[in-house]
Parts: sequence; C-alpha cells; structure tokens
Amino acid sequence: MNTPSPLALVPFVSVANMMRLVHHIGLEEMLRELADYIEEDFRRWEQFDKTPRVASHSAEGVIELMPTADGELYGFKYVNGHPSNTRTGRQTVTAFGLLAEVSTGYPVLLSEMTLLTALRTAAMSAVAARALAPRGATTMAMIGNGAQSEFQSLAMKALLGIDQIRLWDIDADAMAKCARNLAGHGLRVTPCSSAEEAIEGAQIITTCTADKQYATILTDNMVGAGVHINAIGGDCPGKTELAPVILNRASIFVEYPEQTRIEGEIQQLAPDHPVTELWSVLSGASVGRRAASEITLFDSVGFAIEDFSALRFVRARLRETGLYDSLDLLADPDDPRDLFGMLQRARAPND
Amino acid sequence: MNTPSPLALVPFVSVANMMRLVHHIGLEEMLRELADYIEEDFRRWEQFDKTPRVASHSAEGVIELMPTADGELYGFKYVNGHPSNTRTGRQTVTAFGLLAEVSTGYPVLLSEMTLLTALRTAAMSAVAARALAPRGATTMAMIGNGAQSEFQSLAMKALLGIDQIRLWDIDADAMAKCARNLAGHGLRVTPCSSAEEAIEGAQIITTCTADKQYATILTDNMVGAGVHINAIGGDCPGKTELAPVILNRASIFVEYPEQTRIEGEIQQLAPDHPVTELWSVLSGASVGRRAASEITLFDSVGFAIEDFSALRFVRARLRETGLYDSLDLLADPDDPRDLFGMLQRARAPND
Repeated sequence: MNTPSPLALVPFVSVANMMRLVHHIGLEEMLRELADYIEEDFRRWEQFDKTPRVASHSAEGVIELMPTADGELYGFKYVNGHPSNTRTGRQTVTAFGLLAEVSTGYPVLLSEMTLLTALRTAAMSAVAARALAPRGATTMAMIGNGAQSEFQSLAMKALLGIDQIRLWDIDADAMAKCARNLAGHGLRVTPCSSAEEAIEGAQIITTCTADKQYATILTDNMVGAGVHINAIGGDCPGKTELAPVILNRASIFVEYPEQTRIEGEIQQLAPDHPVTELWSVLSGASVGRRAASEITLFDSVGFAIEDFSALRFVRARLRETGLYDSLDLLADPDDPRDLFGMLQRARAPND
Repeated sequence: MNTPSPLALVPFVSVANMMRLVHHIGLEEMLRELADYIEEDFRRWEQFDKTPRVASHSAEGVIELMPTADGELYGFKYVNGHPSNTRTGRQTVTAFGLLAEVSTGYPVLLSEMTLLTALRTAAMSAVAARALAPRGATTMAMIGNGAQSEFQSLAMKALLGIDQIRLWDIDADAMAKCARNLAGHGLRVTPCSSAEEAIEGAQIITTCTADKQYATILTDNMVGAGVHINAIGGDCPGKTELAPVILNRASIFVEYPEQTRIEGEIQQLAPDHPVTELWSVLSGASVGRRAASEITLFDSVGFAIEDFSALRFVRARLRETGLYDSLDLLADPDDPRDLFGMLQRARAPND
C-alpha cells in the first residue's frame, strides 16, 4: 500500500505530546501565552460564528460538541462531563478538538484537549481576574480541590502575581493532593478547615466543585465587599455553586450570555438580569470593576472560542517543536473524483 | 514517559486500514453488511436522539457536525462539502467520525469516514431501492459519474442483483473513469451520449451530480411510469437535481423530514407536501411502493444515523481484523482528580 500523500495527513497531538509541550514551554509561560491567545480572540469577538454548544444529555452525564469559526479557521471540541466516572478510575471530563481550514474544510490539527481544557480554563479565569479583580490582589481562596485546582492557582500566579493560595475541599484527600502538587511552585499554600476559613483575607475566591446539582458553596455572609469571585464549577443546567443573594450583590461578567443563562450561576436569576460580556471589557467597550468595594463575579461556563484560541496556540507551536504525529485521516486519491480507483489500487498483491 | 494505560487509548481506523478492511471483507459483502446495520438502526428509529446537522456555511462550502445517540452509544461525523476543492487536488467531501459510550462519555472509535461515507451512502441507496424499486429490476441509469458512482452501482448489484449500468456525465473523462473502474465487476456497463439515452430501459435512476446550485438533471418527459428515482446529489440548501413537476408525480420517501425539507429535492415543494419516512417502510408501519406504475423517489440527503450504523459496523470488526492503531487521545491519571500530578510525573529526567 502506498504512503499517503501530505494532503491526507493531519497533525495529531497526543496526551504524551501535550505533556511534552507543556514541559518544553514551561507551565506558567504556557498559561501566559494561552491567555494572550484568548485575549486576542475575545477582542475580535464579533468576527466569530457563535452558537451554544450542542449537548446530548443522559442519566449519567453529557456529551457536547462546541463549534466556532472566525472566517479563516473552524474549530470544535468534543467534551464529556460524567461526575460518576471517577468511581471507575475515569476522568469526569475528557476532551479532544480539531481545527480546519474554512476555505477547504480540510482538518489541520487534531489534539487531545483533556489537559488543554484544564490549561485554557485556568488561563481564561486569570484573563478575567486580571481585568476584574481588585488591584494588588495577593491571595486566592481555592474552594474545590479537584483536577482544575492546581492549574487555576498557577494561572493566577503567572498572570496576576498571586502568591498565597488558601485551600478548602470537603474531601481531605483532595485538599492534601492539591497542597502536595503546588509545593515547590513559589506559592504559600494553606489548607483550611472550612470554606469560611479559606476565604479569610482572599481578594479572589475561585469555586470549582463537581456535584451535578444546585449547591451553595458560598453563602451571603461569606462574601465581603471588594472581592472578585471566579465561579467555574456551575457549568450545566441544574448545577450551581453560589447563593442567589450573592449574585444580586455582584456585578456579573459572562462569556456568552445565550449559553451562560442556561448553564451558569445566572440560571438562578431572571432571564433579563443585567450581565456584561467579558469580551467587551477586554476590548475596552465596557467598564469592568467600577469601585474598590464592588463585588465582581466571573460566571464562567467555558465557551468554544476559548478552545479555538487554545488550538490556535498549539498549532502555532507544531513546526518548532515537532511534538505531533501525522494521522492518515483523509482519503487523498490522485484524481479527487476517483475514490474508487484509489481503493482498487490499494489491493496490492503483497497486502 | 510512561506508556498510556488502556483507558487512555482509542482505536483509530486510518484511510489505509479502512481500505484493508474493505478488501479483507470484500467490497460487495461489506456493502451488504453495512446495509444490514443501517436497516437494523432504521427499524429502531424511535430509540435515537435525532437533530438536524449543525452546519457552518462559508462562501466556499460547508462544514457540518452530525451527532446522534441510541442510549448506549453516541456518534458524530465531521464532514465538509467544498465543490471547488477538486481544483487544488482535494476531495469535495472528506469526513471522519467517532463513537463514544453514553454511560462514560469515553470515545471507543475514531475512524476515517471519507471512504466509509461513500460506502454507507451506497448501502443506504440500495436499502431504499430494495424496499421501493419495481420487482425484478435489472438496470440502473447512473447520472453523474463522480466519486460516488461506482459505489452506488456495486451496492445496487450486491443488494438487488442489478446487472446493467447505463452511465451519463457531462464530463466524458468522469464517465470513462467510471466505466473503467466498473470493468471486471460482473456488470454490463454502457456509457451513453445523453441523460435521455442513459435512462432508456432503466427501472432505477440514480442522480448524483455535484454543482452547488438548482439544476435540472431530470426533466418531466424523461421519467416514465414505474421507475424508482434515487436522488442523492441534492443535499444542501439551494442544491437540487429534479424538476419540481417530477416531484409532484412521485411518492416521496425521505430519511428525516426536518433535514430533508431544508436540504433535499423537496425544498422546492410546499413545507407540508406529504412525504413518507423510510424507516417506517422498513419497520412495516408504512407502505412503500403501492403499484407497478408508481414513481417512487428516495430524496436522500444523508443522515447521522447512517453514519452511526457504519461506525457500529467498523467497531464490530476491529478485534477480529486488528486493522486499527491505538491513539493516545485521553488523559488517564492514576487518580482521576490528579491531572496535574500526571503532568508533573511526565517530566522525566530523560525526557
């Protein structure tokens, strides 16, 4: 059988190569560069085709496709969310993604996105916090110490200079794991004995818990004036983390309102409750934080453009690093109308 | 770096392995088996989550995601349609697809689908013709001799015993290519000098042309009583092949009306023009052909369940044939909450 032509091959970044890429660039530097790609794309928000994700719900979880396009490139991510997966040693969330040329429809990158999603989610949180958190913030409370927690902590360090992380999780093992992983990364890490204790002195509160239900991780009296809340765990219908009264005290910033009103914390509010789109703050069209005493809330559910930005970043590093395999994903007959002839010629005698 | 665990690996069927699979099974046998899988899934149509495809249109073409699920398995196909691609030596249509477990969201198969789509489309046509064409049909007119034409011809042979194919294409090279490819496959193949000549004596007329516009491949006086028309080229908004008056004379059968009314020949008719869903004929709930003199029309645009069936078939043959590679697509940390720890441990000194 003949070797496939270059037109037939799609660069594929495996989990192993994604890990190599992170270590080649350095985790904090990669978070900063991902943040730059996200900011660049958020500033040209209006160029993108946007649509709420296409979700397939089941009793156990959800499988979603998240497409977007900017006129030159088309991207989509496949991602699942299955809270009970950890019982069988599986990830709650796995993902992969693809970029393709709009002009030909040909894929130009297939990539693992389980790790990449964790990185882009952390970078996204830090982009929002850089725009919204009080000046001179040094301390973040990290409520929920699962797979996202270390990435969130290091992104806040890399982009905002946060140097103190206060941990809380109802699962002591998860908290110990997070503290262990963050050791040696230049952060002062303090495991706490309650959420109330964790938020003491924190200018930024990040919530990232995993129950698929309405929960109240933060109650009204826990949230004082001037903090920035980064709520990333409430990300599907029926799953929230904050008491509604906090939402009513906060200025709320979202990625894509059409999606956030269904999936985010604001599903608890009236459908016309005022929110600000984060892209408009980053582009200068809207104001972010207006006063030191204001509570700002980034109600983050994750949006397709963030994945698009992350895939663009990975693609830009392919040639320099060589950290990919070539996948024989596309049929490429000599004569494009002769798919059948290609198939027949593949029946070599020694095959 | 450690070897990924089995949970991290997804079987991948490349174009080369898909071609090996076809030759291993035999093309006509594979078309028959694909037809069985499609019929099986059409008979349990009501078990599926169904949605029109998610299309991203541009000036040059379209990129689509086609998801469906049956409660146990979730599948989707990525497919593009770019008519001008042949100018740069590319395929008009390329595709790949994925199956995943609904219960975990974990992918269980990634496969090329450029070839597989050609095979499933041909098998689908033959499934419809077996249910709708006049008894004892021996002859098919094949109008449009591009990449689909040989597969369509051989599927009609494999499932219905068609032994004569009459070819017509405005491009003489395409017609010669099709005749050459079909030589030695047990068919009497007759290149013709017009569409009118090609349909002489044919009980089945298959149209598969590629222009992205309203065209009239068949005019009213060309279509006599009793034939079955298999219209597969009109498959997106603004692209049709048949004169509306033919549609008004025919009993029309479709895959999924919500999609066909936008993309198929019937986009030329009133939105409430009566059509019969093919699945209901295959399951016995509706009648197919009612009289020898009736004109039946399968207005085919391609539907996600056909891809799902084809992917199920490929998956069922993986173990026996070994014709796949294992792709390191999913992150699989020892502790599912410890993605960060997996990343840190991958920074081996010798890496």
